[in-house]
Amino acid sequence: MFLDAASGEPMDPVAREAYMAALDDGWADADRLYREGRRARMLLDAAREAVADVIGARPDETVFISSGTAALHAAVAGISQSRSAGIRSATGAGPRLVTSAVEHSAALHAAGFTATRLGGEQVSVPVSRLGALDLDAFAAALMPAGQVALACVQAANHEVGTLQPVEEAWALCAEGGIPLLVDAAAALGRIAPPGHWSALCGSARKWGGPSGVGVLAVRKGTRFAPAWPEDERERGRAPGPVNVPAVLAAAAALRAREAEREAVATRQHALVDLIRARVAETVPDVEIVGDPERRLPHIVTFSCLYAEGEALLLELDKAGFSVSSGSSCTASTLTPSHVLEAMRVLSHGNVRVSLPWRITEDEVRRFLEALPGVVASVRAQAPSGPAVSTETDAEETRPDAEPLRNLSHSPDSSGSVIDALGRKCPIPVIELAKHIGDVPVGATIRVLADDVAARLDIPAWCRMREHTYLGEEPVGERGPDAVAYLVRRDH
Amino acid sequence: MFLDAASGEPMDPVAREAYMAALDDGWADADRLYREGRRARMLLDAAREAVADVIGARPDETVFISSGTAALHAAVAGISQSRSAGIRSATGAGPRLVTSAVEHSAALHAAGFTATRLGGEQVSVPVSRLGALDLDAFAAALMPAGQVALACVQAANHEVGTLQPVEEAWALCAEGGIPLLVDAAAALGRIAPPGHWSALCGSARKWGGPSGVGVLAVRKGTRFAPAWPEDERERGRAPGPVNVPAVLAAAAALRAREAEREAVATRQHALVDLIRARVAETVPDVEIVGDPERRLPHIVTFSCLYAEGEALLLELDKAGFSVSSGSSCTASTLTPSHVLEAMRVLSHGNVRVSLPWRITEDEVRRFLEALPGVVASVRAQAPSGPAVSTETDAEETRPDAEPLRNLSHSPDSSGSVIDALGRKCPIPVIELAKHIGDVPVGATIRVLADDVAARLDIPAWCRMREHTYLGEEPVGERGPDAVAYLVRRDH
Repeated sequence: MFLDAASGEPMDPVAREAYMAALDDGWADADRLYREGRRARMLLDAAREAVADVIGARPDETVFISSGTAALHAAVAGISQSRSAGIRSATGAGPRLVTSAVEHSAALHAAGFTATRLGGEQVSVPVSRLGALDLDAFAAALMPAGQVALACVQAANHEVGTLQPVEEAWALCAEGGIPLLVDAAAALGRIAPPGHWSALCGSARKWGGPSGVGVLAVRKGTRFAPAWPEDERERGRAPGPVNVPAVLAAAAALRAREAEREAVATRQHALVDLIRARVAETVPDVEIVGDPERRLPHIVTFSCLYAEGEALLLELDKAGFSVSSGSSCTASTLTPSHVLEAMRVLSHGNVRVSLPWRITEDEVRRFLEALPGVVASVRAQAPSGPAVSTETDAEETRPDAEPLRNLSHSPDSSGSVIDALGRKCPIPVIELAKHIGDVPVGATIRVLADDVAARLDIPAWCRMREHTYLGEEPVGERGPDAVAYLVRRDH
Repeated sequence: MFLDAASGEPMDPVAREAYMAALDDGWADADRLYREGRRARMLLDAAREAVADVIGARPDETVFISSGTAALHAAVAGISQSRSAGIRSATGAGPRLVTSAVEHSAALHAAGFTATRLGGEQVSVPVSRLGALDLDAFAAALMPAGQVALACVQAANHEVGTLQPVEEAWALCAEGGIPLLVDAAAALGRIAPPGHWSALCGSARKWGGPSGVGVLAVRKGTRFAPAWPEDERERGRAPGPVNVPAVLAAAAALRAREAEREAVATRQHALVDLIRARVAETVPDVEIVGDPERRLPHIVTFSCLYAEGEALLLELDKAGFSVSSGSSCTASTLTPSHVLEAMRVLSHGNVRVSLPWRITEDEVRRFLEALPGVVASVRAQAPSGPAVSTETDAEETRPDAEPLRNLSHSPDSSGSVIDALGRKCPIPVIELAKHIGDVPVGATIRVLADDVAARLDIPAWCRMREHTYLGEEPVGERGPDAVAYLVRRDH
């Protein structure tokens, strides 16, 4: 059962049909004057009108590009660059690019890269624990307005589903005359498209269209200077020829989605409510993240204490469920998701479920039945679980746990020390849970760890288990990444 | 009848089949750990091996990117940038990017753009009248080698079909330790892939694969620094997710082409010989351009004196033939093809015929039968044709021609003057042909023109008609682009 629609769905049947038809009718270069080219141009124009209509843009504001990633790269660089010279001459300093901390990595990378290239800076605006943009901090980052080349805020978060206050962000940008780029990749086809923006990006793959089609709309009056070699196509905003059959398929899928959008959203919003409720009931020690209400209809994310993200993915896969994870080691990355990090929530044992367009309630219920057993089995297989002790027994039952060989647990002036250096999360947290009962209530325990995920996971554990996280201290003599995390036992 | 295969062919049936199969099996994100992702990864790996095998690369040297244009942009910027800092610190000056003058516009734009960004210079190496790289000039442009970041030479020209001396270019680059980028977009699937290169680019669209797939191979040991925001995919060399179904289709098409390549090439080489011979016999006043022997099997280009390129395209289209043209005004461009310009051949009335994979001799013969009538009718419709005079009668018969209103034809110390200012090619040439007989043999005629194509077309006309082109002089008082072209009547 595929539960990772947010990474890209299988192509919708209407999109397939449109693609195949366009292979016969729209395969030629739309810039050519002969009949095959003119025919491709007509189809491309029709597709552009259809997509522009859905996203609330004019056709001449809307271009097609090779992916959502490419659209974000183009928009960030193109808008920032066009404003950069003016900012430098007016202020004597480089431009500032303001993003939320939870934008898609393509937007963050583009903003960082562009800021460096233009001799400016990227400012990342914090989010709430639910993942929503901090509007006060955003307003502050936009000051002085004359310094800001671009603000970039997603319509909704792709990892946890939280909707962003785009209208409020727009109002703040409009005050300062700052262009606002809205990344609508996770939102298009799922919720109503954002109403106000200077530029908008999307990805057909996320709405049941083919791979290889991004959409970039730039409002009339927003200056744009392409950041790559000139090309006369797509208003100079997308290099290379347009993939007309894929664009037609993308347009067909988007139109089909829009026609059913509200009905599907209502149904899926309820299915996600069901998942949120059942996971909280049936999986012990779980943190469900993201806004429970102001969210996309189809995405839900939760983190399971004491479980490795990669092990969860693989065990769920064995059980026939395909999900995503923001935990480290679950793809080519060794660090936890920057979204979970910005939200300061538990990062290990993370699971993102995103519902495909045609999923049924029965399928969701099958997943919910299987999940608790899968989590339990992964926890049982963890390299080291918390020991059974009278203190922690009520909270965790890990009969097969082995004590860590390198655990040093010597009371000193600062209280007990757990040495989890060199061990990956969730082990530092597992060890903390195992040994918190060994110190008196009110005492402090120091957890030494060098896995970066511990910085998220130890405070998150304290919050979940109702102990107090006191902060961190460097322990340089044990390696450059070694940190002591201080936890006070509260009960 | 589609005769513009060099712009991109319809997708091959084997590619369609592979694409449709991969929509079921390979639609997922190949970086995901679950079954759909692993399956996509397996298919992607297989496609990569297949393509790498054909182009003579290792799979880990080969990445997929969104188009041939994107591949060229990436290669030019990625290689040049990685060498730029070293060049600057060693020589104190910016890097030099060396290209042939007849590279694809994507390569030329990328080289110009990258040179500007890196504070270096782009050097364009001239070609022979047949379109072949001038190796002496190329060798000179590579000196001193320590200054050169990249050399870029196509395997074969996409507009006129001339093969480039890539092996000789490689030897010159190797001497200086200069990386050589070979653009094989026009060549792959048509001739044997080039043997030596530091990086190689291709476009699936040109070999019967889908739109939206470029291939970029970079030899182990060639340094490469991506010129855009980081992305962990495709070795960081192509942003955004890989379009796995399209890549599989591309690989299937390339393999199918390679299996039949030599047989098709032999047949099409003979068909192009037939076209070259018949066009020369049946179309008066035609210049067939490009190397008659050292050429791609499927491309032939010729220019028809006294005919407008756009009118030829449209008239051929009405007659059912789709061809391309390097003349001005035939697409979004108002200048003639830079390839024809670099070759110093006639640019107006230009027609490129490029044979699709499955064309038959009967089809080619049908085109050859129709062509002379189409050219004649376009010439008859020209805004002004050469007048009938005893001198030019033997050469041109244009009974319906009208004299130009703004023709000033006053003998003075420099001979007669034809004032074609404000008139587009071919009119200046038509006027020249009409009036050359009005001056005595040995006298000079001055043609005033401000269409840039005249700079190519007046010398080309002189060559074809065996008069002497004496050079040009500015005539500033008649506008910034006004030029006087001097022609001596020789017979």
